[in-house]
Amino acid sequence: MSTIQHTPFIDDVHRFEDTRCIAIDRVGIKDIRHPLTILGRDGSSQSSVATFSMCVDLPHHQKGTHMSRFVAMLNSDIDALDINNFAHTAHAMAKRLEAGHGYLEAAFPYFVRKKAPVSGVSSWLDYQVTVTGIWRDGEADTCLQVVIPVTSLCPCSKKISEYGAHNQRSHVTLTVRPVAELWIEDLIDLVEKEASCELYGLLKRADEKYVTERAYNNPKFVEDTVRDIASRLEADARVGYYKVETENFESIHNHSAYAMIERHK
Amino acid sequence: MSTIQHTPFIDDVHRFEDTRCIAIDRVGIKDIRHPLTILGRDGSSQSSVATFSMCVDLPHHQKGTHMSRFVAMLNSDIDALDINNFAHTAHAMAKRLEAGHGYLEAAFPYFVRKKAPVSGVSSWLDYQVTVTGIWRDGEADTCLQVVIPVTSLCPCSKKISEYGAHNQRSHVTLTVRPVAELWIEDLIDLVEKEASCELYGLLKRADEKYVTERAYNNPKFVEDTVRDIASRLEADARVGYYKVETENFESIHNHSAYAMIERHK
Amino acid sequence: MSTIQHTPFIDDVHRFEDTRCIAIDRVGIKDIRHPLTILGRDGSSQSSVATFSMCVDLPHHQKGTHMSRFVAMLNSDIDALDINNFAHTAHAMAKRLEAGHGYLEAAFPYFVRKKAPVSGVSSWLDYQVTVTGIWRDGEADTCLQVVIPVTSLCPCSKKISEYGAHNQRSHVTLTVRPVAELWIEDLIDLVEKEASCELYGLLKRADEKYVTERAYNNPKFVEDTVRDIASRLEADARVGYYKVETENFESIHNHSAYAMIERHK
Amino acid sequence: MSTIQHTPFIDDVHRFEDTRCIAIDRVGIKDIRHPLTILGRDGSSQSSVATFSMCVDLPHHQKGTHMSRFVAMLNSDIDALDINNFAHTAHAMAKRLEAGHGYLEAAFPYFVRKKAPVSGVSSWLDYQVTVTGIWRDGEADTCLQVVIPVTSLCPCSKKISEYGAHNQRSHVTLTVRPVAELWIEDLIDLVEKEASCELYGLLKRADEKYVTERAYNNPKFVEDTVRDIASRLEADARVGYYKVETENFESIHNHSAYAMIERHK
Repeated sequence: MSTIQHTPFIDDVHRFEDTRCIAIDRVGIKDIRHPLTILGRDGSSQSSVATFSMCVDLPHHQKGTHMSRFVAMLNSDIDALDINNFAHTAHAMAKRLEAGHGYLEAAFPYFVRKKAPVSGVSSWLDYQVTVTGIWRDGEADTCLQVVIPVTSLCPCSKKISEYGAHNQRSHVTLTVRPVAELWIEDLIDLVEKEASCELYGLLKRADEKYVTERAYNNPKFVEDTVRDIASRLEADARVGYYKVETENFESIHNHSAYAMIERHK
Repeated sequence: MSTIQHTPFIDDVHRFEDTRCIAIDRVGIKDIRHPLTILGRDGSSQSSVATFSMCVDLPHHQKGTHMSRFVAMLNSDIDALDINNFAHTAHAMAKRLEAGHGYLEAAFPYFVRKKAPVSGVSSWLDYQVTVTGIWRDGEADTCLQVVIPVTSLCPCSKKISEYGAHNQRSHVTLTVRPVAELWIEDLIDLVEKEASCELYGLLKRADEKYVTERAYNNPKFVEDTVRDIASRLEADARVGYYKVETENFESIHNHSAYAMIERHK
Repeated sequence: MSTIQHTPFIDDVHRFEDTRCIAIDRVGIKDIRHPLTILGRDGSSQSSVATFSMCVDLPHHQKGTHMSRFVAMLNSDIDALDINNFAHTAHAMAKRLEAGHGYLEAAFPYFVRKKAPVSGVSSWLDYQVTVTGIWRDGEADTCLQVVIPVTSLCPCSKKISEYGAHNQRSHVTLTVRPVAELWIEDLIDLVEKEASCELYGLLKRADEKYVTERAYNNPKFVEDTVRDIASRLEADARVGYYKVETENFESIHNHSAYAMIERHK
Repeated sequence: MSTIQHTPFIDDVHRFEDTRCIAIDRVGIKDIRHPLTILGRDGSSQSSVATFSMCVDLPHHQKGTHMSRFVAMLNSDIDALDINNFAHTAHAMAKRLEAGHGYLEAAFPYFVRKKAPVSGVSSWLDYQVTVTGIWRDGEADTCLQVVIPVTSLCPCSKKISEYGAHNQRSHVTLTVRPVAELWIEDLIDLVEKEASCELYGLLKRADEKYVTERAYNNPKFVEDTVRDIASRLEADARVGYYKVETENFESIHNHSAYAMIERHK
C-alpha cells in the first residue's frame, strides 16, 4: 500500500476510458490453486486444495478490471468454504471489484470416510466437487456439482450370457441448484443408493464378495441410472434445477456409454 | 446381420417397456476416436483423428437406446466431415436411432499451412476444433468452436516499464452458430488479425524480430482481445450467436487471465 | 533464405561461445502436433496426427542449438513414418543439427480394423502408440510403445462370489526395443491373446454374449496378465528389451491395480 | 477382522502357488487420492491432497500380492509426510507386504508464501511435487521432484529486436536424489534464482514493473537455464544424482522449447 505512494508515477491503464461500447460478460482470473478448508455436513471441516476461477462483469466504458484484487481477496479472505454460503462470497467479491455481477468457482477433491459393507473397515473415498457462487442482478445463486464414481453392471450382458456380466467404473456427475440447505454428502448418499453398487477405498474378501453379488443383482444401463436418480431428485424439496449425467467407461469397448437428464423444477 | 437370424433367442433388453415415466434428454456414446477427413475452405481435404460424442433423446416409455447403431453409423457412414453440412448428419443419425433429436459432436486437430511474415517459409499450425451438429424439433443447427493460440502482450506492463513488456501464449476460444456458409479458416483469420500477434510453427530470425516488435506495438489485455473480436463478429453477417473467450497463460503468474463476451444476434 | 541475405545485421545468438563448460544431454522442441502417415504391417498406410519431440545433444562450448531446424525438418522431410526405419530419421536429424546424438519421438493414435467375434461386423479400434528413434554414439536404436486397452476380470472376485465377477477396462502398456522387423500390429496381437478378453468398437448381442462369457472363463489378476505377456515376449526373437505394464481401472475401487515386469534379454 | 472368522470359506486366491517362474518387478496400486500433511523446512506443516502409487516386488512362486494392505496402510499409517524420512515409510510398506523391495510415490501441490519484490504483499504460489521412497536390497533411497514455474525471456528475440522480447511461462522440473537433509523449499530457492524471473501469485503495479524489467535484463534460453541450475547443483553437497529439465511454452509458437541435463555425482 505505502509503495503506491512512493510510486505515484505509475499509470493505471485499467482505469482508462473505453470507447468501443462493448460490455464484457465475465473477466477475471482462472486456474489458480489455493489451499482451502471445507465445512462438512456433520459440522467438521477438512483441508483440501482448490482450483479457483473468479470473474465479474465489466461495463462498456471501462478498459479493464482490477485483476490483482481477485488474488488479494483469495489470499486474505477465503479460508473456509461453506457451500451453503458461497453465493455471499461471490457478492463480496463483486463489491470489492466494484462490479454488478460476480462468478466465483472452486473445484476440489472432497473425502468421505466410508465403512466397508461387511467387515466394516473404514477408508477414505474421494469425490471431485465444483461449487459456483453467483451474484447477478442483486440475487444470489449457488450451483453444486459432484462427480460420484460408482460400479455399473450391464443388464443386457447379464440377460444374454450364461454366466457373468460386464461391469465397469462409471462417473455420475450431478449438478444442482439448491433451494434449501444441501451438503455434498447429501448428493453422494442419493447417488450411491441408485448405482449398481457403490465404491470403497478398502475392501476385505468378504466385502469383495458382497459388492460383486450386489452389482450382479442390481444391473443398470446408463438410462436406468439417470432415471432412478432423477426420480429421487424430483422428490427432494431441497433441489431446484438439476442435471444428472452418467458415463460408463465400458469394459468391453474403448469408449463410454452416456446419458443425461436435465430439469428446471 | 445373418448372425442375428442364427441367434433368435437373444433378448433385446433395450426394447423393453419403461414405466418410470421419465424421458431422457440425451443418451448415446462418448469419447470414441475415429479417423476422419475434413473438407477445407479451399476445396481441399485433410486427414485428422476425431473424438466423437453421439447422442439422441429417448422417450419415457422406452427402456434403452440402440447403442451399437451409433458405432455402426460411425464406421460405415462418416468418412468426410463438411462443417456446413454437419447438422444433416445429425438428422440422419436421429433417424437411424428412431429418435426425435440428435446431437453429434466431433473434436479434432485441424492444420493450416502458414507462411512466416518476412522470410515466407511455410509450416503447419494446429488448431483444436469442435463441431456440433444438432437436429431438434425438426430444425437443424450447427455450432462451431475453434481454439486459436496467439501471442498476447500486456499494455500495463509495457506502459509502466522502462523497457520490455510481459507477454505469453494465449488461447482464444471462439464458438459460433453460423447462419450462412462459414469455414474454420474464416474464424482463424478473424481472430489472428485481432491478437497482439499470431503464432507460426517455423520462424527465421528476421521473422522472430518481426513478431517480437509486432506484439510490442500491439499490446492487448484479455478485455481488449475479446472486445476487438466481438466487434468483428457483430459486423459479420454469417455469424448468429457467438461466444468469445480469451485465456492468457500469464508469464508473470502461475494462473490465467480470462475474459468472455457472449451475444445472441 | 534470400531474406537472410537482406538482413545480414541479425546476430545469431545461438552460435555464441559458451564458457560454462557444461554439455547438454538433450535440447530441442516438444509437443508439436503434425499430420503424419504411418506404414502398417500389411503394406497399407493410414493417416494420423502425431505429437513430436525432437532433441539432440549440445557440446559444452556452444551456447544454443538451431531450434528452427527441427521444425523445418518436420515440415519438409517427415511425411510417412516407418517404425522399422525410424532410428535412421533420428540419425538424419542429428546430422542436420550438426549433433552427435538424436532423439526423435512421435506419439499418435493408431487404428486397427477388427471383426466382432461372432457376427463378424467390423469396426475401428484405436491404440495409443509412441515410437522413439535414437541415434547415439554411431548406433541406431528404436523403442516402440503401444497402449492396448483390454478387459480384465478378477479371479478372486469370481472365486469367492456365488455369481458374477468384477471386471473393468485395463491398459496394457508394452514397451519394446525390437532387434528385428516388428510392427505395431504384432504387439497388439500378442497382448490381446493374453487378456481376459479383447475390446471391440462394435458388438452385436451375440458378440456381447461371447465377450462376457470369454472374460468370465478367463479371469486374470494384473500379476497374471504381465506374466503371461512376459512369457510370450521371452519366446519372441524379434524382441530385445521389454517392459510390460498393466493397469486395471478397478470397477469396485476409485483407484487402479498395477503390475510391471521389465527385462533386458 | 472378526468378519474373516465368520467367513472361513473364502479362498485367498492371491496366496496360491504360481508355476510360471516369472518374478514381478512391481505390483500394487496406482492413482489413489489421499489427504496428507507435509512437513516444511521451517518446521511448520501444511495440508494437501496427494496421489499415491504403492508397489512392491513379487517372487516368482507367489500368485498375487496383498492389494488391500496398501490401502489399509495408507488409511491407518500415513498422515504426515517428511520428505527426509520417506524411504523408511517405503521400508515399512515392504515389510507389511512381506516383500523385498518397496516403491512408494506421492504427488501433491505444495504451497509457498511469497512476498512481492517491491510492495511486499504476500500470496501463495503452488508447486507440483513428487517424492518417491524406495527400499531395495536393504538400502533406502529417496527421489524428490519439483516442478517450478518461472518466466523465461528469449536472448535472441531481445538481441535482434529494436524493442521488446518474447517471453513466456516455463516449467523447470528438477529431480534429485538427496544425500543429506534437503527440503522442497531448497530446490525452489535454487531454481528461482537462476530463472529470467520468478513468479508470484499477487503483484502490485510497482512489482509488475520490477518483474518486467528484471526478465528483460536477464534473458535466458532453455540451454542457459539448465546450465545455470546444473552449475548450482554441482556445487551443492546435499545433492547426489540430479536431472534438470526446462520447458518454455513459447509465446511465439504453439510448441515448447526444451532442454535437459542429467548427472550422477
